[in-house]
Amino acid sequence: QIVAALSAPVSGKLAGVKVLLTAGPTREALDPVRYLTNQSSGKMGYALAHAAARMGAQVTLVSGPVALSVPVGVNCIEVESCQQMHEAVMTEVENADIFIGCAAVADYRPEQNEPQKIKKSKDKLTLTFIKNPDILAEVAALPKRPFTVGFAAETQDVAHYARQKLEKKRLDMIAANDVSASDRGFNTNLNALTVLWQNGEAELPCTDKSTLAQALLDLIAQHYKNNQNHA
Amino acid sequence: QIVAALSAPVSGKLAGVKVLLTAGPTREALDPVRYLTNQSSGKMGYALAHAAARMGAQVTLVSGPVALSVPVGVNCIEVESCQQMHEAVMTEVENADIFIGCAAVADYRPEQNEPQKIKKSKDKLTLTFIKNPDILAEVAALPKRPFTVGFAAETQDVAHYARQKLEKKRLDMIAANDVSASDRGFNTNLNALTVLWQNGEAELPCTDKSTLAQALLDLIAQHYKNNQNHA
Repeated sequence: QIVAALSAPVSGKLAGVKVLLTAGPTREALDPVRYLTNQSSGKMGYALAHAAARMGAQVTLVSGPVALSVPVGVNCIEVESCQQMHEAVMTEVENADIFIGCAAVADYRPEQNEPQKIKKSKDKLTLTFIKNPDILAEVAALPKRPFTVGFAAETQDVAHYARQKLEKKRLDMIAANDVSASDRGFNTNLNALTVLWQNGEAELPCTDKSTLAQALLDLIAQHYKNNQNHA
Repeated sequence: QIVAALSAPVSGKLAGVKVLLTAGPTREALDPVRYLTNQSSGKMGYALAHAAARMGAQVTLVSGPVALSVPVGVNCIEVESCQQMHEAVMTEVENADIFIGCAAVADYRPEQNEPQKIKKSKDKLTLTFIKNPDILAEVAALPKRPFTVGFAAETQDVAHYARQKLEKKRLDMIAANDVSASDRGFNTNLNALTVLWQNGEAELPCTDKSTLAQALLDLIAQHYKNNQNHA
């Protein structure tokens, strides 16, 4: 009964809506031992999954390697690399009404993934990295696409780069955060977001990721419904 | 009282001996967001720190980023990169009787650590990596060096590469494990070790890392004392 009460919808704003989310970092292997990754803890994405489920959505979470528990009522698909995340998203997206790309997907992967551990014989090592698939752009370019929300983690000119990304990838919405401040963003419990859409923007001030997730989903639900009404 | 009982020495084999240990992976930054790292969870190193403290040693642990609690009675210095670990070890080693290099130190780091996030404008990215300091070899080469124990994580010809490393770096002992088996080694609770020294070797069969740590420290304590007697 307690679990049921805790996991019951707090609002029906997303009742019956299918939300597909990505969260966490990806790992791009150089060999069986070494990999390239990033500072993402997955906390923002997991907070969004939790909040969306509480708002009545059917949530599927495609998650990179993180040290977090899957929220109650959320269907989680665990992946490691960008290529695995790409495959899972492209399979699941057909059923999604809203897609939120919150994962910090590695933009590049090593051209070679060596089957044996690379020996440290050389003084210098030159490695070539190739571009990973752009999951967010591919989802946004689908003929029958879901309402598509991206994230931008920047260390400078945050709103400028985010607006560029929104337009270039033709997203419905983008949530941008400055990861250069050490008290928020990656690997902390606090965050602030600048949310941009075609004709407007909103500032969500610094707070815990759970409250922030709720506020962002309120914005998403509102714009998603406006889109539905104009479709 | 319970805490005192749990943390009391189980044997006095290392009573009064100063043990310096490294554990975990290191992170080598490409920019404020991305880094190169490896699969090490730090479990073996933390199990060794715990076991050494229980054998009466004064333990200093220099640890890379892990999701583990520092064992009771252990002095922990937290670091991120190999260069930070190198600096901490070189400061602490003057007081050490035994040094155990259990960390999976990144052999290479990016030549450039970019102050801003690298933009993904290019289709291919060529990065140059330079050799990190070899902490273990530097400790072993000190004029007044501690009893020096290394680790070797290999995916092929485990004993062969470990014997080579023992001789080349002039270690007192090396503990080698095969990280190609998915049921043991990196990121699991089980491990098996082949322990080599100049005129002999021992097989420590697959078991939990806590039991294995105790068995390895028994070997280390025995050889350390033999060395003292012959000094």
